Amino acid sequence: MKANVYVTLKEEVLDPQGEAVRRALDSLGFPGVKKVRVGKLIEIDVDGANRADAEQKLRSMCEKLLANPVVEDFEFEVE
Amino acid sequence: MKANVYVTLKEEVLDPQGEAVRRALDSLGFPGVKKVRVGKLIEIDVDGANRADAEQKLRSMCEKLLANPVVEDFEFEVE
Repeated sequence: MKANVYVTLKEEVLDPQGEAVRRALDSLGFPGVKKVRVGKLIEIDVDGANRADAEQKLRSMCEKLLANPVVEDFEFEVE
Repeated sequence: MKANVYVTLKEEVLDPQGEAVRRALDSLGFPGVKKVRVGKLIEIDVDGANRADAEQKLRSMCEKLLANPVVEDFEFEVE
């Protein structure tokens, strides 16, 4: 079962990488970009008896490894 | 206008980071994970007269900076 996991920095956490991208876009001729945040997209091919089982495993993977709950949020969707 | 840009490695490109995540998941008790690929999720707040204008700008940003066309693919969606 294929799934996408989206890991993003929490809103209140500074994102220097995103700010660097915003500045680079500005200097490349895109002055209208107000905000950029860079997160991770993790594509996982996971087994599971059914969708609920796969979702439960994915949640556990996010909590244990894929996301840092102190500074990151996660979402996922099973295809 | 808010948009999400998804940057992923092309299918034929090796992903050592993804493989490292897969092994880590395996050792954490998730042996059923067959494949992991790690990409980027870039959240952008972009201006634009309308949706078509914003999409054109986003495409240009991806081609010029956000994705490396040699090894990466990109997709985006405007909210």
